[in-house]
Amino acid sequence: MDAELGSWRDGRARSAITDFVRRVTTEGGADYVDPAERVAVVDNDGTLWTEKPMQIEIGFILQRLAAMAEQAPDLRERQPWKAAYMHDYDWLGGAITQHYRGDDADLTVLMGGFLRAFAGMSAEDYLAASGEYLRHGSHPTLGRGFGQCAYPPMVELLRYLEAHDFTVYIASGGDRDFIRAISDEVYGIPAERVIGSSNALEYQEDERGASVVYRARPDVFDDGPVKAVRIWSRVGRRPILSAGNANGDIPMLEFTGGPSLPALRLVVLHDDEEREFAYTDGAEELLERAERGGWTVVSVRDDWTTVFR
Amino acid sequence: MDAELGSWRDGRARSAITDFVRRVTTEGGADYVDPAERVAVVDNDGTLWTEKPMQIEIGFILQRLAAMAEQAPDLRERQPWKAAYMHDYDWLGGAITQHYRGDDADLTVLMGGFLRAFAGMSAEDYLAASGEYLRHGSHPTLGRGFGQCAYPPMVELLRYLEAHDFTVYIASGGDRDFIRAISDEVYGIPAERVIGSSNALEYQEDERGASVVYRARPDVFDDGPVKAVRIWSRVGRRPILSAGNANGDIPMLEFTGGPSLPALRLVVLHDDEEREFAYTDGAEELLERAERGGWTVVSVRDDWTTVFR
Repeated sequence: MDAELGSWRDGRARSAITDFVRRVTTEGGADYVDPAERVAVVDNDGTLWTEKPMQIEIGFILQRLAAMAEQAPDLRERQPWKAAYMHDYDWLGGAITQHYRGDDADLTVLMGGFLRAFAGMSAEDYLAASGEYLRHGSHPTLGRGFGQCAYPPMVELLRYLEAHDFTVYIASGGDRDFIRAISDEVYGIPAERVIGSSNALEYQEDERGASVVYRARPDVFDDGPVKAVRIWSRVGRRPILSAGNANGDIPMLEFTGGPSLPALRLVVLHDDEEREFAYTDGAEELLERAERGGWTVVSVRDDWTTVFR
Repeated sequence: MDAELGSWRDGRARSAITDFVRRVTTEGGADYVDPAERVAVVDNDGTLWTEKPMQIEIGFILQRLAAMAEQAPDLRERQPWKAAYMHDYDWLGGAITQHYRGDDADLTVLMGGFLRAFAGMSAEDYLAASGEYLRHGSHPTLGRGFGQCAYPPMVELLRYLEAHDFTVYIASGGDRDFIRAISDEVYGIPAERVIGSSNALEYQEDERGASVVYRARPDVFDDGPVKAVRIWSRVGRRPILSAGNANGDIPMLEFTGGPSLPALRLVVLHDDEEREFAYTDGAEELLERAERGGWTVVSVRDDWTTVFR
């Protein structure tokens, strides 16, 4: 038993990981993979840390919208600032519910506010604001700091892979620079190995010198097929190991391995109502695909001895 | 004298490099920079290897267009396949000349052909084709392999920086995946540290599995202000050292250092007719900016003992 995966119970998931790593690192073996090719990609929300009751980033955006409304009273009459300022989670939740029913009117309003929230801010200021929120805020229902919302078994997996000469990237649908603010201290993953969504950036020169500044325009939404494209763009290689927990991770997992390389695909199943949250919404297709393809399902309840530190 | 910069003559450029590296690596010094922040970005065409009489990548594209015309005779009657097939450098050069005169008609035709040239090809096949061309082709006028078109003093600089815990990225206006094909063997820079232009990629699933495939659509043209944006997107930090040779490198050089970090900006001046090429076209603004800002100009003629191996 490898001490490095100490929060993993003996079982199929753990064995799948250790067997795969043994195969790709055994020189002369049929599945040996050169260290340069040992690329792993891991989703963030719901895979490395908890994403319920809402993604941690949403809280950051709402806080910013509320602060804008604090400064500019006229915004308090306009959505989504109004809902953020009034803590009107019914309106916010309703926008998402309506979206699933095919009505994007409120979601469009919400997204417009999100884009406005950081427009004109330099990437470095955004990084600093994200870090401030992540280091000092706390999870709304778990009552723990955001850094403690990471899953220790997954962080152990990152270290285990690195110990076997893997290079690990975070490949998230969430905002790239938000994650970068804390990726090194929480996950040991440096900024240059965080792949994610981003609003458009623009180069500006002014009296303070040159900087890159956010615009009120989306650029990359790093989910679904885009995840595979972005992994190639950033890494220039296929991953041989990937981990995700939602339908938007399917293309990333499909893209893993490929014609000439072995693959291990991990799917985190949230089935632990007691220690975390139990849900499969947004993961139905992934779980079906995992079953059909023999992908490795990781049960939070059964495979992890610890869910949070 | 540092043995590692053996192809650099003693002089202002060499001293600027060694002084800067000493300052940022001296613990407790005013300009000390943490190793994680020691990011260097270096342009490719004209900075790491020769770009005359035309960028090496252009030859690759023309070869591909000619091969397409070989397969499909009707293409031989259409530009730019006709010019590529007939080796009509007058037409090709004319498209560029007209562009500088404000007439983009032929350039648009040329670019349309370039986009078509690789549409439908997977990123991995493109990488393989690029590697094939770069390893087996030779420079049209210098009579040397493309790998030998790199400047040894610049490759020494990359190693020198790495020896002082810098992380070096290539930040090129040229095609990202073309450079990736040979970046490790020629420059010792792995694929994930090559930033460059790219046509759009698309995720596809078919009987061979999942892949990412080029589309006949541009995505990123990594030049000018975009270089600074792309460096942030890829690295998540400002560089503290940058090197370029053309006007399109100005924003990257301006972006270097910034409010809280020291900066060294290197400008390669092509002034050696005898050993390479002498030209300043496309670099006029950069040279003016360098003089105004006291940026470090590297003279190929005076600062390098060797231009090619």
